[in-house]
Amino acid sequence: MNHLQRVLDALVERIDTPAPIVVADVMQQNIDRMQAFATEHDIHVRPHVKTHKCVEIGRRQVKAGAVGITAGNVGEAEVFAKAGFDDIFLAYPIWPAGTKGKRIRELAETTRLRVGVDNVAAIEALADSMGDEPDRLQVVVEVDCGARRSGAPPALAGDLARAARKRGLVPVGVFTYPGHGGSSGDAGERAAQDQHAALATAVRSLAEVGIAPEVVSAGSTPTIEFSTSSPITEIRPGEYVFCDLNNTRLGACNEDQIALFVAATVVSDWVPDQVILDVGTKALGREGSLERGYGGVAGRKAVLSKLNEYHGFLAVPAGESRPSVGSVVPVVPNHVCPVVLNFEELIVTDSAGTSLERWPVDARGFMS
Amino acid sequence: MNHLQRVLDALVERIDTPAPIVVADVMQQNIDRMQAFATEHDIHVRPHVKTHKCVEIGRRQVKAGAVGITAGNVGEAEVFAKAGFDDIFLAYPIWPAGTKGKRIRELAETTRLRVGVDNVAAIEALADSMGDEPDRLQVVVEVDCGARRSGAPPALAGDLARAARKRGLVPVGVFTYPGHGGSSGDAGERAAQDQHAALATAVRSLAEVGIAPEVVSAGSTPTIEFSTSSPITEIRPGEYVFCDLNNTRLGACNEDQIALFVAATVVSDWVPDQVILDVGTKALGREGSLERGYGGVAGRKAVLSKLNEYHGFLAVPAGESRPSVGSVVPVVPNHVCPVVLNFEELIVTDSAGTSLERWPVDARGFMS
Repeated sequence: MNHLQRVLDALVERIDTPAPIVVADVMQQNIDRMQAFATEHDIHVRPHVKTHKCVEIGRRQVKAGAVGITAGNVGEAEVFAKAGFDDIFLAYPIWPAGTKGKRIRELAETTRLRVGVDNVAAIEALADSMGDEPDRLQVVVEVDCGARRSGAPPALAGDLARAARKRGLVPVGVFTYPGHGGSSGDAGERAAQDQHAALATAVRSLAEVGIAPEVVSAGSTPTIEFSTSSPITEIRPGEYVFCDLNNTRLGACNEDQIALFVAATVVSDWVPDQVILDVGTKALGREGSLERGYGGVAGRKAVLSKLNEYHGFLAVPAGESRPSVGSVVPVVPNHVCPVVLNFEELIVTDSAGTSLERWPVDARGFMS
Repeated sequence: MNHLQRVLDALVERIDTPAPIVVADVMQQNIDRMQAFATEHDIHVRPHVKTHKCVEIGRRQVKAGAVGITAGNVGEAEVFAKAGFDDIFLAYPIWPAGTKGKRIRELAETTRLRVGVDNVAAIEALADSMGDEPDRLQVVVEVDCGARRSGAPPALAGDLARAARKRGLVPVGVFTYPGHGGSSGDAGERAAQDQHAALATAVRSLAEVGIAPEVVSAGSTPTIEFSTSSPITEIRPGEYVFCDLNNTRLGACNEDQIALFVAATVVSDWVPDQVILDVGTKALGREGSLERGYGGVAGRKAVLSKLNEYHGFLAVPAGESRPSVGSVVPVVPNHVCPVVLNFEELIVTDSAGTSLERWPVDARGFMS
């Protein structure tokens, strides 16, 4: 990760900390590599925008060949639709109460909108929301492949698709999320096997009610490598765009592919073998554990051993020099997704640290 | 916490979830109670705005009698200064690099600004930032009372104050943060004892260099009850305004005083003894533990056993009914501070759930 320290050294006089720094050429390589991988395996990429929430980055993903985008809530979908994205999959079991039914109907008027469903009550509510044009809304049945989160049993996919069709909605396929792998070395591969089995079952279930799915959609960055065989038609990676420490540990990326770090300043150094950085949970989230720490520093073994809201406790191991008060270090998140929404904008540069643009985090704060 | 379920029941048709709901009369009682406690003990309240980041709530705290506000970073101070707050303590060991030196100088021109310092290098840098008017900036020496975070050893407070005075800055006192108590029953009292001892030592150290402190400032909600005796002149509670589960566990508030919850919808229920809510780390942060869970539901024993970004796994204990898909429940955070900055606005109502206002989270996203 020494590339990150070089970027920061070139940039440091021009930024205030804490700040999320994106290395645009490394990010672009991540986008292009994922796209090339998918193209090689004849599947579509539909990146999850939860990781960046940034219209400009979404545009680059689409320009590289993404078939559309994935969103995690109605607000994200609205922000990207307003920016011109016209193929959006809301991969979440939406319950259209409050104004959400109306908002989904309006979204479906201007974009090809797909939403997740995993139960009949939600299907009925969505159909009610669509008034006399239910066929404007495509639904994708969510099935569970072992994460035990949302998603129906795969064998029931056909029943749900039929319930949607009966109400005039357009069932176009199935999706799942292989988030149960844990963090051991072969976690991604094992979760991907479960994912494949669940999707195959779901496709057979759809066939039983006469539906040939247009989309069979698989998650996420750590399992992509093993998610290319039929019936899968689409992958929804998010984190690959920036990478992070969790994904390097899982083998889903390597350290040279990390494209986002948080620049942090050493503000205090009274405790031996420790310095305090100006990043806490309000910059990084609390992603990690006591054993693993809550984030690393590029080029160092030191890890954040504890976080308060505005303070990061950087534990400096014996034999490693402590950075002095006032010095700025590149903090690499364990999990990158909860970082961007803490900031108004991303500071975007290149591997030389010469360029400097500011891109808004457009969809931050649109939680409902 | 049954008051929260009643509020939600009255409000539910008018909101989209997830949404942070503030019960304004309960919050006002929290503000008034803290102020009455401080007045009774002849100390000042300087609330930390990190908990709410909301100008309207800061105004209510000042109207009730707060002597000013506490901020955690320059951006928060700027937002509140712009809104008319004229007495701000930036209780953080600021390092004025980038544009921060200039921003602090500009803040000090329009408000009585105090900033924390815990080392000579930062004192020098702050003095440099102030140009030929260093006396516009008041500094408060941070000392450590056992949290082993930032803060100099208390006996060195005088040396740091003298270094500040030598450069023309105005040393006005000392502060500390008793964040090392842990979560056992008498944690607050023990941390407060350490805090008192550290502040008393620091005051003696200031006396040795001829400084009688104007302010001797103590933290935070869980220790307030034990933080009233001389030399303490000021308390900086934050969480008391909303309260949360951590503070009820510590005995710093009771359940009826909880004034903020997150309204969340059940979106999936396929796994026995569990339902999925539409709140994850991007609404609540990841505050909690596997043992304790990541948040509760008012009126239920069920806790969030796991969080993904947009999904909360609500583990429903045997014998407790599962809420059905589409129902909305009041989620009570373990730690309230990381919640508000995830949202654009707070939905503000009363205990009857009849009124409904939207207050912006003004200082969200101003991280540097």
